[in-house]
Amino acid sequence: MKPSGRQPQARPQSLKRPPASAMQPPTNQGAIMAQDKPARRPRAEPPKGFRDYFGAEVTERKQMLDKVAAVYHLYGFDPLETSAVETVEALGKFLPDVDRPNEGVFGWQDEDADWLALRYDLTAPLARVAAQFRNDLPSPYRRYAMGPVWRNEKPGPGRFRQFYQCDADTVGAPSVAADAEICAMLSDALETVGIPRGDYVVKVNNRKVLNGVMEVAGVLDPSDPARFEAERGIVLRAIDKMDRLGDDGVRALLGAGRRDDSGDFTKGAGLSAEQAEVVMGFTSAKRATGRDTVARLAELVGASVIGREGVAELEMMADLLDRQGYGADRIVLDPGVVRGLGYYTGPVYEAELTFEILDEKGRKRQFGAVAGGGRYDDLVKRFTGQAVPATGVSIGVDRLLAALRAKGRGTVDTAGPVVVTVMDRERMADYMAMVGELRAAGIRAEVYLGNPKNFGNQLKYADKRASPVAVIQGGNEAEAGVVILKDLILGAKIAQNATLEEWKDRPAQIEVPRADLVAAVRRILAQ
Amino acid sequence: MKPSGRQPQARPQSLKRPPASAMQPPTNQGAIMAQDKPARRPRAEPPKGFRDYFGAEVTERKQMLDKVAAVYHLYGFDPLETSAVETVEALGKFLPDVDRPNEGVFGWQDEDADWLALRYDLTAPLARVAAQFRNDLPSPYRRYAMGPVWRNEKPGPGRFRQFYQCDADTVGAPSVAADAEICAMLSDALETVGIPRGDYVVKVNNRKVLNGVMEVAGVLDPSDPARFEAERGIVLRAIDKMDRLGDDGVRALLGAGRRDDSGDFTKGAGLSAEQAEVVMGFTSAKRATGRDTVARLAELVGASVIGREGVAELEMMADLLDRQGYGADRIVLDPGVVRGLGYYTGPVYEAELTFEILDEKGRKRQFGAVAGGGRYDDLVKRFTGQAVPATGVSIGVDRLLAALRAKGRGTVDTAGPVVVTVMDRERMADYMAMVGELRAAGIRAEVYLGNPKNFGNQLKYADKRASPVAVIQGGNEAEAGVVILKDLILGAKIAQNATLEEWKDRPAQIEVPRADLVAAVRRILAQ
Repeated sequence: MKPSGRQPQARPQSLKRPPASAMQPPTNQGAIMAQDKPARRPRAEPPKGFRDYFGAEVTERKQMLDKVAAVYHLYGFDPLETSAVETVEALGKFLPDVDRPNEGVFGWQDEDADWLALRYDLTAPLARVAAQFRNDLPSPYRRYAMGPVWRNEKPGPGRFRQFYQCDADTVGAPSVAADAEICAMLSDALETVGIPRGDYVVKVNNRKVLNGVMEVAGVLDPSDPARFEAERGIVLRAIDKMDRLGDDGVRALLGAGRRDDSGDFTKGAGLSAEQAEVVMGFTSAKRATGRDTVARLAELVGASVIGREGVAELEMMADLLDRQGYGADRIVLDPGVVRGLGYYTGPVYEAELTFEILDEKGRKRQFGAVAGGGRYDDLVKRFTGQAVPATGVSIGVDRLLAALRAKGRGTVDTAGPVVVTVMDRERMADYMAMVGELRAAGIRAEVYLGNPKNFGNQLKYADKRASPVAVIQGGNEAEAGVVILKDLILGAKIAQNATLEEWKDRPAQIEVPRADLVAAVRRILAQ
Repeated sequence: MKPSGRQPQARPQSLKRPPASAMQPPTNQGAIMAQDKPARRPRAEPPKGFRDYFGAEVTERKQMLDKVAAVYHLYGFDPLETSAVETVEALGKFLPDVDRPNEGVFGWQDEDADWLALRYDLTAPLARVAAQFRNDLPSPYRRYAMGPVWRNEKPGPGRFRQFYQCDADTVGAPSVAADAEICAMLSDALETVGIPRGDYVVKVNNRKVLNGVMEVAGVLDPSDPARFEAERGIVLRAIDKMDRLGDDGVRALLGAGRRDDSGDFTKGAGLSAEQAEVVMGFTSAKRATGRDTVARLAELVGASVIGREGVAELEMMADLLDRQGYGADRIVLDPGVVRGLGYYTGPVYEAELTFEILDEKGRKRQFGAVAGGGRYDDLVKRFTGQAVPATGVSIGVDRLLAALRAKGRGTVDTAGPVVVTVMDRERMADYMAMVGELRAAGIRAEVYLGNPKNFGNQLKYADKRASPVAVIQGGNEAEAGVVILKDLILGAKIAQNATLEEWKDRPAQIEVPRADLVAAVRRILAQ
């Protein structure tokens, strides 16, 4: 008995077949069938801003993510896979009352008039899950998630509308021990995927300290938090641009404003020179040791309650990390890290790769940030009304892959299969028996399945497949009970630059008894 | 220097943050901000027909797919990951000239007025890729793909609108050696994931043979292929329902038609009794050996050119598979398999699990199909105008997972982490040092990060996490330099049904020197 027809993804009929409606035009709508426009062929391309990943690109990412997942697993984090589609309501998008949702997400209205959208990150779905399953999930809930997210933004070079994120978050843990744990885990993950210690640093800061400094500078009034909100936004964005604008640029933005090289003017926060000095003191508060940095920050926040809370949190994180052996060679306090705008409420952290690469203009520069995160306490509250403390990190998967490639560590085993060529189409079974034997010995192998007429095409194919060995057996060889093995790697080397000695020592083509096929291939692969 | 702001998925600022537009309402549209409706909270649920996968569900699927991928890799297949979004044009959907695409897919119109949609299977994107990269890909191109697909269909119990497929296809190989290879690989894959030989069978048939039989029965005229098309469709669907309707039901559908138990009438193909007999002879042509089945089919197709071609193809496949050792215990010719409607043009195949399970009504039944596929030669042609021969299989991932669970083979290591409890919030660094040591020894471990006040909650948490061991160190233990280990697995057993002997022999709670923490935990885990 076959399973019920009510389960399309389960019933055998749905395997390898489009949904019924894709095979025929809807009958109740003014449908335009492709067949009705005879000459018009569909364009063979993905939508703008989307791309395909082939072979080693897929394997490389998978291997990296598997290593990261193993670290997360060791730390007690459980995988979570939410669906790609969420209601716009759950994602927290703002609905325009027009025909399509606003930019930033890919959204559409379903038959029940609900707006649906592809997730734009992995944090919003986590907040939904944490609210939906709050009575069932362990609390605290440690979860990791890896997968594509989608953004409806203008595509550009190296900028795609579907890309991978890799997140780990702890929901329901109020203590900064949770933040410290994420930082330690991030450090372990980077080393595990192949970024050596010394080539990265995890920088830690705390938004509460910054708020304390703002209070001292007179742009935060604890009794009226809404006051100076615009000014604080400008201050935050200014600090975030320190790398690019330098001290003077930031100082200008803290004050009246800044005119850039193009002549454009950006309005500043309007701080007095004295106020600006307080803020600048914060950004440069980093000292040689965490302890000294904390002491300096304590001076800066003075009597600010929120500021002192932040300093205490930073101190506790530093202490926890130190005592676990995560010293300044891996994790440092750095008041320069503010992590832009957004929803952070306490600790913020960022992993930076410190080795140099050449940028597109050939200039040396540090590789830069590959991961970032922090504490956000208000995302679950949207759903439940109750604040749920949460903290988490997101690794930029493509960035980290690029870093590994830059370090020569992204390479995966891209060796192609042994290719058994077809000299005699009638003896296909013999050739398939050869690949069968090779595979049974764990050797990746395939028989040439194109039109075998032109033998040159078969060798070109083997080349395109990056095949290490081609196996050849024509009628004469079959009669003599032998096969010819072509060492394609050596062959390529010889073609390039091998010496006569090498040529003599290791002929690129050998004849071996048929019975020795597997052993002989193995010998070549081991070379 | 930070990377350019033109790369949102690359720039550090985009890590762990929604796109800018998600944080603020669009200013140029009549936006409704969530904040403007004070009391209304978003519902914490996914869209109808979507679900989340937690912990072991994710791991279990991943482990199965990893094993399948290893087999595909060994056979020389390369991974391909296309984007989730395609143009509706490339997917081959028929566009209604109304506001939204027809049912079956999730689609929307982008700003350039192109209709985009989520892929509904992995074959349509492969056809697009094969056409787009036809000059760059090796030919034949062997590829596998694993990932979610989306169908905009009415959700129901066990029927979701996002589900996984796992496909392997060879594009550009005209020979049925390619089909035979896929069947052998499917057999290997099933055994590798844990379906023992004898518990499955891969059934092979050929559409051309069926067409030959249709010709003999007088419902296919080679000189006018369009004639009797409707009748042939009815015959195909009737054969496909053999399992459910039995001989008599199918015979009725081949003739005038069939009235079902509810009284509904389905119009038949209108074949005479004699014609129907020819078709019925086909469905029951399976004999004890492949050779005998082929001989019987040769009789049935008589002089039909297409039929004889099909028989020859079946014979060649059987020969190739036999000579590779894939005998009737794994792969059989079965004319009963027609694989519904759709685009198949030659060999079709289906993997069936033959062991029995209890259905929802408690009746024994065979598990049924978990994979299917066949040869389709016209999908790439849509784009290029040139026919490209292709063949491939799709594994129903959820079905196969269900089968493994039914066989007790789907279980993954779901052991939770060792939980280090927090007796004294001031000594968090000590507890974190303990988990650090455990992890360094490769033992999954975590410290309790919730509010530590209520110790009972900590043990409840450990229980929810399926933790094997809880580590406890209060002030007294710390002073004495010891830790207490609670064997939670044994504890649970004792609570249920342990004998007094067991209770005495293995106390569920032991005290060990702090220095022996790792060794002692390891001993408990090894038990």
